[in-house]
Amino acid sequence: MKFLFINGVNLNMTGRREKGVYGSLTLDQINARIAKYFKGDECVFYQSNIEGELCSRLHAAADEGFDGIILNAGAFTHYSYAIRDAIAAIDIPVVEVHMSNVHSREEFRHTSVISAVCRGVIAGFGANSYILAAQSFKL
Amino acid sequence: MKFLFINGVNLNMTGRREKGVYGSLTLDQINARIAKYFKGDECVFYQSNIEGELCSRLHAAADEGFDGIILNAGAFTHYSYAIRDAIAAIDIPVVEVHMSNVHSREEFRHTSVISAVCRGVIAGFGANSYILAAQSFKL
Amino acid sequence: MKFLFINGVNLNMTGRREKGVYGSLTLDQINARIAKYFKGDECVFYQSNIEGELCSRLHAAADEGFDGIILNAGAFTHYSYAIRDAIAAIDIPVVEVHMSNVHSREEFRHTSVISAVCRGVIAGFGANSYILAAQSFKL
Amino acid sequence: MKFLFINGVNLNMTGRREKGVYGSLTLDQINARIAKYFKGDECVFYQSNIEGELCSRLHAAADEGFDGIILNAGAFTHYSYAIRDAIAAIDIPVVEVHMSNVHSREEFRHTSVISAVCRGVIAGFGANSYILAAQSFKL
Amino acid sequence: MKFLFINGVNLNMTGRREKGVYGSLTLDQINARIAKYFKGDECVFYQSNIEGELCSRLHAAADEGFDGIILNAGAFTHYSYAIRDAIAAIDIPVVEVHMSNVHSREEFRHTSVISAVCRGVIAGFGANSYILAAQSFKL
Amino acid sequence: MKFLFINGVNLNMTGRREKGVYGSLTLDQINARIAKYFKGDECVFYQSNIEGELCSRLHAAADEGFDGIILNAGAFTHYSYAIRDAIAAIDIPVVEVHMSNVHSREEFRHTSVISAVCRGVIAGFGANSYILAAQSFKL
Amino acid sequence: MKFLFINGVNLNMTGRREKGVYGSLTLDQINARIAKYFKGDECVFYQSNIEGELCSRLHAAADEGFDGIILNAGAFTHYSYAIRDAIAAIDIPVVEVHMSNVHSREEFRHTSVISAVCRGVIAGFGANSYILAAQSFKL
Amino acid sequence: MKFLFINGVNLNMTGRREKGVYGSLTLDQINARIAKYFKGDECVFYQSNIEGELCSRLHAAADEGFDGIILNAGAFTHYSYAIRDAIAAIDIPVVEVHMSNVHSREEFRHTSVISAVCRGVIAGFGANSYILAAQSFKL
Amino acid sequence: MKFLFINGVNLNMTGRREKGVYGSLTLDQINARIAKYFKGDECVFYQSNIEGELCSRLHAAADEGFDGIILNAGAFTHYSYAIRDAIAAIDIPVVEVHMSNVHSREEFRHTSVISAVCRGVIAGFGANSYILAAQSFKL
Amino acid sequence: MKFLFINGVNLNMTGRREKGVYGSLTLDQINARIAKYFKGDECVFYQSNIEGELCSRLHAAADEGFDGIILNAGAFTHYSYAIRDAIAAIDIPVVEVHMSNVHSREEFRHTSVISAVCRGVIAGFGANSYILAAQSFKL
Amino acid sequence: MKFLFINGVNLNMTGRREKGVYGSLTLDQINARIAKYFKGDECVFYQSNIEGELCSRLHAAADEGFDGIILNAGAFTHYSYAIRDAIAAIDIPVVEVHMSNVHSREEFRHTSVISAVCRGVIAGFGANSYILAAQSFKL
Amino acid sequence: MKFLFINGVNLNMTGRREKGVYGSLTLDQINARIAKYFKGDECVFYQSNIEGELCSRLHAAADEGFDGIILNAGAFTHYSYAIRDAIAAIDIPVVEVHMSNVHSREEFRHTSVISAVCRGVIAGFGANSYILAAQSFKL
Repeated sequence: MKFLFINGVNLNMTGRREKGVYGSLTLDQINARIAKYFKGDECVFYQSNIEGELCSRLHAAADEGFDGIILNAGAFTHYSYAIRDAIAAIDIPVVEVHMSNVHSREEFRHTSVISAVCRGVIAGFGANSYILAAQSFKL
Repeated sequence: MKFLFINGVNLNMTGRREKGVYGSLTLDQINARIAKYFKGDECVFYQSNIEGELCSRLHAAADEGFDGIILNAGAFTHYSYAIRDAIAAIDIPVVEVHMSNVHSREEFRHTSVISAVCRGVIAGFGANSYILAAQSFKL
Repeated sequence: MKFLFINGVNLNMTGRREKGVYGSLTLDQINARIAKYFKGDECVFYQSNIEGELCSRLHAAADEGFDGIILNAGAFTHYSYAIRDAIAAIDIPVVEVHMSNVHSREEFRHTSVISAVCRGVIAGFGANSYILAAQSFKL
Repeated sequence: MKFLFINGVNLNMTGRREKGVYGSLTLDQINARIAKYFKGDECVFYQSNIEGELCSRLHAAADEGFDGIILNAGAFTHYSYAIRDAIAAIDIPVVEVHMSNVHSREEFRHTSVISAVCRGVIAGFGANSYILAAQSFKL
Repeated sequence: MKFLFINGVNLNMTGRREKGVYGSLTLDQINARIAKYFKGDECVFYQSNIEGELCSRLHAAADEGFDGIILNAGAFTHYSYAIRDAIAAIDIPVVEVHMSNVHSREEFRHTSVISAVCRGVIAGFGANSYILAAQSFKL
Repeated sequence: MKFLFINGVNLNMTGRREKGVYGSLTLDQINARIAKYFKGDECVFYQSNIEGELCSRLHAAADEGFDGIILNAGAFTHYSYAIRDAIAAIDIPVVEVHMSNVHSREEFRHTSVISAVCRGVIAGFGANSYILAAQSFKL
Repeated sequence: MKFLFINGVNLNMTGRREKGVYGSLTLDQINARIAKYFKGDECVFYQSNIEGELCSRLHAAADEGFDGIILNAGAFTHYSYAIRDAIAAIDIPVVEVHMSNVHSREEFRHTSVISAVCRGVIAGFGANSYILAAQSFKL
Repeated sequence: MKFLFINGVNLNMTGRREKGVYGSLTLDQINARIAKYFKGDECVFYQSNIEGELCSRLHAAADEGFDGIILNAGAFTHYSYAIRDAIAAIDIPVVEVHMSNVHSREEFRHTSVISAVCRGVIAGFGANSYILAAQSFKL
Repeated sequence: MKFLFINGVNLNMTGRREKGVYGSLTLDQINARIAKYFKGDECVFYQSNIEGELCSRLHAAADEGFDGIILNAGAFTHYSYAIRDAIAAIDIPVVEVHMSNVHSREEFRHTSVISAVCRGVIAGFGANSYILAAQSFKL
Repeated sequence: MKFLFINGVNLNMTGRREKGVYGSLTLDQINARIAKYFKGDECVFYQSNIEGELCSRLHAAADEGFDGIILNAGAFTHYSYAIRDAIAAIDIPVVEVHMSNVHSREEFRHTSVISAVCRGVIAGFGANSYILAAQSFKL
Repeated sequence: MKFLFINGVNLNMTGRREKGVYGSLTLDQINARIAKYFKGDECVFYQSNIEGELCSRLHAAADEGFDGIILNAGAFTHYSYAIRDAIAAIDIPVVEVHMSNVHSREEFRHTSVISAVCRGVIAGFGANSYILAAQSFKL
Repeated sequence: MKFLFINGVNLNMTGRREKGVYGSLTLDQINARIAKYFKGDECVFYQSNIEGELCSRLHAAADEGFDGIILNAGAFTHYSYAIRDAIAAIDIPVVEVHMSNVHSREEFRHTSVISAVCRGVIAGFGANSYILAAQSFKL
């Protein structure tokens, strides 16, 4: 299978910021671990801090034969209707993931404006959230 | 590992009700499939329509050596602070699951009063939501 | 025709509690009056104070050939999404009834979380609310 | 007995508009059916699209010896405090009726500003809502 | 083509009231300008301060062969569910217009209860709002 | 001086409805009392149950040389943006009056959508509210 | 008759502050004008910037034989439940007054927490608001 | 005197769960301490996790000659209108108690739907809350 | 033990105002009764209608060796963040008391801005609320 | 005349995404159609998925001699105060357009944070919305 | 220059209360430090726990030739419309200061009812907030 | 000391846009003034209209030895949880600044989603806001 893992704003800081929340693995280390877990599959990784670039990446994915997209939009999750519309604009199923359990954190993190157009949501399992999300396409 | 799968109110009707939403497998068939998937692990299954019995089952689990609890509280998810407190009263990690993507359904399903005291949330993958939740303990 | 009359929490106290609101007939007397009114029809009566048992009774009704269910959920009307889902899980039409005019009482009684999945609502006619509800199936 | 059936705004279009919601009987046909059902009683019918005329009709009814008024205020139900006050200004009991189950439709239809001053509410039974409402006075 | 231009409450005062907001042309002068602009089309003009008469005019239009209705409901825009239902009751497309940009005025003018059942909305262009609305049917 | 006293919906029932709230004088008796109090001034009285007619009466007043308008809009006070705009459309100062103290009654009566465009508000003095309002123009 | 005129916080600045809103008469000049208007009556004047002193003054008034109290609580109007309770604690009728039309000013001035326990409200007539309020006791 | 002490959902876990909040005494130990404190009185203890059983216990109490009921409904406090109605259905005074100070905890614990129908509320004194509540009947 | 009983705004009127709510004992009589009940303890009583004086009294108490403070802030309970901060500024435990059951009265009395920084809350037992509060320190 | 047509996020997907909502013309085809319609005028087209670039494009326009800007901000419409401020920062009039009738779609699309600083709004006419907007400058 | 530093309720406890939040300097020590920092300027210091006295001090300042007022209103910041109006009543610019960053504390501290009438706001710099505020007048 | 001054969206237009609000100095002129004021310190200036670039700049700053960051996020202040998280992701203290007093402008400007993670906030002093913010690090 072919998966696209998209990480949004501030996730490039993973492993450096708030380690109590996000763990001490860097994003590269997390991606390496994912790639190893799904070594028989094709895994593509993308990160951007720019909302519009994340939209463009989702658009581009429409023609690249992905079986599924695993998206951690970071803080954009909570207000980016732009990303919501970008997800709705393509036919590839998207799974929303969060490393932390967003529901036990600040109030503003309890709302996701993108969940409604995703296939499903996985939150709270650290770097394993990505793996479970990709695994969902293989069951 | 030893898992407890708890299903709440109306989930005994799975496979009979709203098949477009919940699929056509009965709860017994889903449980059988889970047990088969985790055949090397010990899987215990429980279902009740009664909120207080679900609380009591969670209490009892505290002394039964479970590695994790997978909980689909059904409609109680949206208002049962009793179940929330029952989860908080025990030390075993609980993963909240939903078969449907609750965020693309009625407004009232967008709020979970139990997420904040769970380890994580998995929603939208049909019967596979249970499998992914249990899998989260094995990664 | 075959009707199921379900009464929820505290309705066993009818005739004893707040007589100004609910009248002085006991539930048994009300049921007797209903049975007499529909003496050519089959009337089944059920009451429970336990939300989950009300759900189970609704589930069971699915296979018992009822033409209609008349449901006074009592206070559960205002917050039991569990009962809402139980109604949605079966194919038999359910009419929501209230003896008092809930809209002229406390604010919290103005919201019903079950109306949306019922066929209709009848409120304010005392014990006659049940009779009108059953009558609705015969017009 | 003597009944006044008042229909408010847009109900003159019944049978022509949104037939999936309101059925295909015209208001005249509905009224004829009601009159036939209560052929031993006196039935008076009134319809107006003008809120103030509906108020005036309610005022006038105070002196005309009606046993009950059956009122479908149409969309005015949701915001006409004028009609609410008109109902409160007279001593004849008024039953609020709706042909559709307003609670399973748009959000704004879930609020009635007149229920609190009516004797009761009947909704969801099509043209039979009127009949059940009048019947409530005869039980 | 055949157009119906409906103006609601207070619009008869156009050219006299709040000229800074609505301009100094009277409604007759505006209508004359519209008729001249669409001189090859049939333009019918109607104005009433009475909500129910506006509903009745919309109903009547259903059988008069209009290609489109251009409706400035005035202050009724913000609360008249009656007019909303009247629009929904007919099959002719309705375009909602406002002379002023309602969104840069008082808070209560930011809500329209009729937009959802109209084909589109045009606001902010003075008397030209009517012309653009009618023009929309000719593109 | 020349005053216009406008009474809105249901105020024709004064003296007949809810006497505990509105007193037992009829509107004619109240008007007679006002006329007597201001016997050296010109007092014009108008009442209608129809919102649009109240707007039209306000419009017409613009050219009739009134020093002030005393307006009891009845229940329209709480939602009629149409009347609000009609008041704003004319240059004659309008004083909003209520016989009862609306702030000690139901919640919905605590909001007035017309106060902001009136010169002032007088509420709670029964029929004397009208007299005090007119008196305000003479101080 | 015997009247007590109570002015609350910041009203000692009248005639000095925001003259566009409150006019250019000082509070002493206003009081002098009131005393002159009611020269046959006994007028007592009190002002304090301290909420608790206003409460104490209201308490004391209970035993001083006043026919009525005219109260302009200033900004305390909008949040002082203490003053509300002080009014409710005595039997003398209190009329709430405001010089400006509070409803055409900032949002927070649209709410009065004391109106519900006053006999009536008079707002918008500048210094004349006090005179009209006292006059209300003499009609 | 004769007291009924009712403990609701999860209170069977007292002494085991969140000891920082609820202390380390088990419910049995707390009850023993209460019984000892009121050794001259009759103390009856009841606990259930099931909302409906709590309602039934309240109903039954109506005929058992209790002087007062001390009720800690646990999480049901915050949403169980069923228990509220059960309290209202009987004539014995009920005192609502909480061991913790619910107002310094999560937002949802700040609302009690049962306080309005209780005689009083006592919260924040650990196991002593029960003793103070019973003591209130003896002063 | 040494207790400080603080009574806030309007409580000096106890026994004179709204006797149905607060009883007919004056504050002095209540205090005398408290002093008698705790005759082996040192009881200090303070009352002020001025919010800032209540804050100052709380500040001063910090150095006077009290074991506990019993505070009935009156209407200040509902909005005085000043008193809240004064309580938080000292180390002596404060118990919030109310004579009436505030939760069965007006909506605004259901919110306390001071509960969160108090040790506990006791409401609804008339003058006994003070006694129970002081008793809480002796158990 | 000289027009700038700015399209925001996801509008590059027009003709590919949700054709039922947006039609099957691509953005290039729409622009070509516009250019043809206004062939005597100068039409400049710009699209970006990046909010900040849209702001920069608006800034730049300030010095390029445009008579008007036609802006479809896409999902940014609903939350981009940045774009709002960019519009307010320049003197060229901006018309807000939407191809779909946003008011008959999801709730979040009913709010526009930019309307207040635009000259007007046109929504619901598909690609013709752009043409009508530009036309508004020529009337 | 001549500055007035006003400290409101509970700030007399600075250095004694919640030192983690407010630091361990007493208000006198803070004032001494300010006076030293601005030794070439005239610094006047005032503190009161009484809202009305703070208003009176602001009023008095109007005639004392201050170049600026630095105001830390303490908890009054969040609800004292009285102080807001006192600020608006004088012509001297007022800078609102807070020692703590109120936005990272309890929800109620996020709202200031006085900011809108101040020149600016400075929060979060401990005792330096006062110095920065005064410095703002000298730049 | 070493400071980073970050300016967000639209601030490149300073001196050109809304001069009444922001003054007539351009951003370059403001920066020059700041650099001159802190001529003994190292001042780095950055501006971008792109939210994600502002996040990236904050990230990069983590390793560049700054003593403090002065951030005027412009309109992003009010909704960019992305920038909030970027601030939280680094250890350098950030001071939020605004040139205008945002609290006396539109409602939406009263909310800052970044204040809670900043050290402090300074608003309302024009270009001096930046200078005061940097000065805060030197006291």
